[in-house]
Amino acid sequence: MKKVVGVIGSDGPISSEIAGMAEKIGSEIARKGFVLLCGGRGGVMEAACRGCKNNGGLTVGILPSLDKMQANKHVDIAIPTSLGYARNAIVASAPDILISIYGSAGTLAEIAMALNYKKPVVIVESSGGISEEIKKLKLNGEYTQLIHYSTPEKAVETAAKLI
Amino acid sequence: MKKVVGVIGSDGPISSEIAGMAEKIGSEIARKGFVLLCGGRGGVMEAACRGCKNNGGLTVGILPSLDKMQANKHVDIAIPTSLGYARNAIVASAPDILISIYGSAGTLAEIAMALNYKKPVVIVESSGGISEEIKKLKLNGEYTQLIHYSTPEKAVETAAKLI
Amino acid sequence: MKKVVGVIGSDGPISSEIAGMAEKIGSEIARKGFVLLCGGRGGVMEAACRGCKNNGGLTVGILPSLDKMQANKHVDIAIPTSLGYARNAIVASAPDILISIYGSAGTLAEIAMALNYKKPVVIVESSGGISEEIKKLKLNGEYTQLIHYSTPEKAVETAAKLI
Amino acid sequence: MKKVVGVIGSDGPISSEIAGMAEKIGSEIARKGFVLLCGGRGGVMEAACRGCKNNGGLTVGILPSLDKMQANKHVDIAIPTSLGYARNAIVASAPDILISIYGSAGTLAEIAMALNYKKPVVIVESSGGISEEIKKLKLNGEYTQLIHYSTPEKAVETAAKLI
Repeated sequence: MKKVVGVIGSDGPISSEIAGMAEKIGSEIARKGFVLLCGGRGGVMEAACRGCKNNGGLTVGILPSLDKMQANKHVDIAIPTSLGYARNAIVASAPDILISIYGSAGTLAEIAMALNYKKPVVIVESSGGISEEIKKLKLNGEYTQLIHYSTPEKAVETAAKLI
Repeated sequence: MKKVVGVIGSDGPISSEIAGMAEKIGSEIARKGFVLLCGGRGGVMEAACRGCKNNGGLTVGILPSLDKMQANKHVDIAIPTSLGYARNAIVASAPDILISIYGSAGTLAEIAMALNYKKPVVIVESSGGISEEIKKLKLNGEYTQLIHYSTPEKAVETAAKLI
Repeated sequence: MKKVVGVIGSDGPISSEIAGMAEKIGSEIARKGFVLLCGGRGGVMEAACRGCKNNGGLTVGILPSLDKMQANKHVDIAIPTSLGYARNAIVASAPDILISIYGSAGTLAEIAMALNYKKPVVIVESSGGISEEIKKLKLNGEYTQLIHYSTPEKAVETAAKLI
Repeated sequence: MKKVVGVIGSDGPISSEIAGMAEKIGSEIARKGFVLLCGGRGGVMEAACRGCKNNGGLTVGILPSLDKMQANKHVDIAIPTSLGYARNAIVASAPDILISIYGSAGTLAEIAMALNYKKPVVIVESSGGISEEIKKLKLNGEYTQLIHYSTPEKAVETAAKLI
């Protein structure tokens, strides 16, 4: 069975710097032989999928709608759900570990759901957005132990050690 | 059609102070003629339901399992789902507005999902837990406009103005 | 805790005969003091809710979208879900028992999900549609024991004996 | 983007004849270069995954629980969901087309959900169970047009023509 790494972060327009981080992380996921799973849309998800595909990796996108065509073009296996934002619960439950890059309320929901599911999350805090903000939260010890902070360069290596 | 106020917060043991806040808020929900909707379990949910029932209100519990007997005894209408923690997405989508009291990762997931759904959330920040921590997060403006801070005494009144 | 009876059947245009059956069943649900739960939309659901409301009952509608305004006007407590047709799984898991009137693929999904959840289903076979067709299916014994056939007049009484 | 074929049918003990059909269908899915998606458990799902893997294919399992270890050993990408039987809605929404082999109430729910989602379903009627029974149902024309009957030998070819 393959190890699956979730990549979560903003849909929509992102800076080239964030896109570069996400693409690099996608590349590393491919090089380690992991499957990349994400919400299948644009922004961080698309950049990460592109990096993964360009390095021969495999990408899965859990889509909010029933329309497979809403997946970004680097998604190999699109999983349309019809669940709307509730598909974020599956983005959180499906992978062995999640890597969070930038992001806002959708990403926050995925991090929080991952904690409920006792899944580890690697936070790329230098990517900003909720990935920077999340460290301000004091959570119960059981949850903070699931959160790991990392640089973009070390994120996949950190994830690899945890799964 | 009835106005529905969601109450979110910790399952499990809570202090008598937090229980008092939740019960008071449940009472006010009943007095205003709103329906109280929650995750149906213990802690904050149970205290809020008790306050609501003791004042002639109506309570709905969206349960994680299929077992109705897992609802606290003040739930009138138990909705078993079999969705596990993914039921938190429904606790967030169902009400017209949410009131957050204390809480941890489950509550954080509900707040974040509510923001995705563009639902307003009234945060009782003096209740501590994630309800205190959440204000530390800098979110996009569209989301912060959905978050309203309140005292326990004013929470339902604040909610009433927003729905 | 209240007993909850699910009413499932076609959305969209129905004959006045079917509407009459659904309305009568909704009335009986109210008279027995049960809560009526349904998918919250038109057709059979709307007629059943109307019958329930006209007799002082309480109605819950589990909606596919986030838009409460999509509920029929006889729904007291609308539960928007954003789940699309996947909300049918909740329509099946939530009630103590289901009554099936007329219907097509959506109703069939709800009957089948109810069987998975080991919930009894009362089928009003004279209402036609999938409620007539379903008896042609030979299912495993464990499932057929959950299916009860009834006239429109006796459906709620049959349900009442089973919950 | 890869084409995804869903295989639905009984979990639990199946005859060697049914297992042979499922394995053969899994093999053909691999040979055509499609991804096989299923509920990830035993019985028909396991046999189909085995056939797919033995022919170099790729398999995805949408699991009811959070426990990846509940996947059969021929699943490459396990997607734990925590949704219980409600995961059947995703087994129905995710693939481009479904092939139904044998099965009971769970399979019936998946067929019905697929029809709601306007997904075509290829029924291997000689496999018995719900896959034999389903043809007895008279459904609305829009739904019957989505149902295609086939022999085990021709099932994947039939599916290939439809996607």
